[in-house]
Amino acid sequence: MLFRGDIPTPALLLDLDAFEDNIETMAAHLKARHKAFRPHGKTHKCPEVARALIGAGAVGCCAARLSEAEVFAAHGIKGLLVTTAVVGKDKIARAIALAQQAPDTMFCVDDEQNVREINDAAERGKPMKVLIDLYFGRTGIEPGEPALRLAQSIDSLPNVVLEGLQSYDGQAAHTTPFTARGARTNGNMAKAVETKALIEKAGIRCPIVTGGSTGTYRFDSENPGMTELQPGSFIFMDLDYGKIGGPDSDQYRDFKNALTVITTVVSTPPGFAIVDGGYKAFSTDRPFAPQPLDLPGVEYGWAGDEHGRLDLSQASRRLTVGDRVEFIPPHCDPTVNLYDHLHALRGDRVEAVWPIAARGKSQ
Amino acid sequence: MLFRGDIPTPALLLDLDAFEDNIETMAAHLKARHKAFRPHGKTHKCPEVARALIGAGAVGCCAARLSEAEVFAAHGIKGLLVTTAVVGKDKIARAIALAQQAPDTMFCVDDEQNVREINDAAERGKPMKVLIDLYFGRTGIEPGEPALRLAQSIDSLPNVVLEGLQSYDGQAAHTTPFTARGARTNGNMAKAVETKALIEKAGIRCPIVTGGSTGTYRFDSENPGMTELQPGSFIFMDLDYGKIGGPDSDQYRDFKNALTVITTVVSTPPGFAIVDGGYKAFSTDRPFAPQPLDLPGVEYGWAGDEHGRLDLSQASRRLTVGDRVEFIPPHCDPTVNLYDHLHALRGDRVEAVWPIAARGKSQ
Repeated sequence: MLFRGDIPTPALLLDLDAFEDNIETMAAHLKARHKAFRPHGKTHKCPEVARALIGAGAVGCCAARLSEAEVFAAHGIKGLLVTTAVVGKDKIARAIALAQQAPDTMFCVDDEQNVREINDAAERGKPMKVLIDLYFGRTGIEPGEPALRLAQSIDSLPNVVLEGLQSYDGQAAHTTPFTARGARTNGNMAKAVETKALIEKAGIRCPIVTGGSTGTYRFDSENPGMTELQPGSFIFMDLDYGKIGGPDSDQYRDFKNALTVITTVVSTPPGFAIVDGGYKAFSTDRPFAPQPLDLPGVEYGWAGDEHGRLDLSQASRRLTVGDRVEFIPPHCDPTVNLYDHLHALRGDRVEAVWPIAARGKSQ
Repeated sequence: MLFRGDIPTPALLLDLDAFEDNIETMAAHLKARHKAFRPHGKTHKCPEVARALIGAGAVGCCAARLSEAEVFAAHGIKGLLVTTAVVGKDKIARAIALAQQAPDTMFCVDDEQNVREINDAAERGKPMKVLIDLYFGRTGIEPGEPALRLAQSIDSLPNVVLEGLQSYDGQAAHTTPFTARGARTNGNMAKAVETKALIEKAGIRCPIVTGGSTGTYRFDSENPGMTELQPGSFIFMDLDYGKIGGPDSDQYRDFKNALTVITTVVSTPPGFAIVDGGYKAFSTDRPFAPQPLDLPGVEYGWAGDEHGRLDLSQASRRLTVGDRVEFIPPHCDPTVNLYDHLHALRGDRVEAVWPIAARGKSQ
């Protein structure tokens, strides 16, 4: 039997109690509002996590990339939605192979030439299911008339079938304060719902409007036009999402921190403890550092690819070589993408070690 | 036959001509100064790269961590040096197993209790080879008397044998300008050489002084007391090292950029091109963004885990969906650590695809 203290460090830990609570909170919230729940797999890249979510009522799993979706499909995950356009001859051929293996898979499109290439490559009688990706600041085609014209193109082609709209606003997810976040997502999702109406008015079937995030789910789930939500980070949480604020606090308390990185003190030069986690153990895309647990007065400082520096001048206790220190990572998705395994803990006992099978699958 | 344009993106590319030039430059420089060359494997984590370096005269390969060294050993790489202390019962047992498999492996130590644990766990008659890690701002024990006392402890124990001093100053590597860098490394390496003399005066064998980096090799290689250098990044280079400055420029021109990340334009909202590389495709630990090749007037902006945004308002040419854009990464080591393969190119032809076998091996 393996315990927290036995895991070789640095390692990624999942608190199963917090993780299960987070899933239940989100699943119950969406079920009560009759929204489909297709959580984003780019956060966890782990088939066992996808299965836990489907077990709680999710209709499937989003994937940021084709190669990520291929891994989920190989592990038997149904209801896949690939949220980045599949571009180029080789990837289109792989997307078609994936759809043959997992026929309910949906693919995002935003470019007419790309749609034609998919149509031309697809097998007759086995149309590829597509969602139009709407532009709210990153990828996509503009809502309204431009999206309608793309829907009409899709409708005119025999081997692609429109399933609806991908309506994801990445910037809304982290907009603060809470009220500004609501205003932003409500405004953009209204454009998505209007676009659906425009397409349907043109006689084209467009059943799905999917989008939303851990930051916006409370708003999007109240929008009668949205049919499904695809939040990701709520299962783990991170420092970044903790700071976005909620309805009554500058902290976001809807979900619990379930994900940590455990490290070991490997050196204790005067005044410091050096842990074995650096740029290769934590995400570095946010302007703040990992937060140590149970070490009041101690801050983490980056110390290169493989090390972090804890300044002990204000520490409430000493640290010696071999001590273990756990941290909440700044940003969950890119942290998970550094590790091959997720150690799922019940208390201090390792209940399972889950392969992060789609780690690095960004292609 | 696979070509540059066929590689699924995002992907890591190596320009073999530049890579081989870089190796030859460093190897010739060190050979002319009679310094052993033990390049750091944490940069590449790739047994084929380690073999190329050994083929050019390297005496072995440094590894930042035990698990990284285990991978190199499993691929037949000799002359390993593990540059982080091996802490705790389980890792010490693995280190002993590694030393049995690869008997010339050396391990860094800086803590007397840790040394005793290694000694107690090692097999009689098969002493573990250790280097004392000297403190110059990150890990290690202070040079001079503290290091001497640790050397005396090692000398008093039957199953550990002192091979010398690990004398790495990570901050010196990126100190600018060039003259300040020289002053810093010369000052610290002098302390290392003095410590070696102190230990030898006490009658303890201490043959090796190893350290240095891509930033400091010109200085360290002129230091008569240093016996070997362990630079890493020179094989690939990156934006960060390009900025540290050389003897006659604020650019560092000793080595060529051999490492790039290739991406594809997946969406073209008005005014922008969105490429399929974001936080999961590039290192994010430096305060600057990936630099596009052959796109004057265009800057990369981060757009989340999987995307980057190219502002085309000043672009010299249009970009359309499916176009490919290559970038020099900000920092090579953590970028390499995101990928499973290195595509080794001769011109536009993929000559080999090398597994980054120790990717993620930070334990």
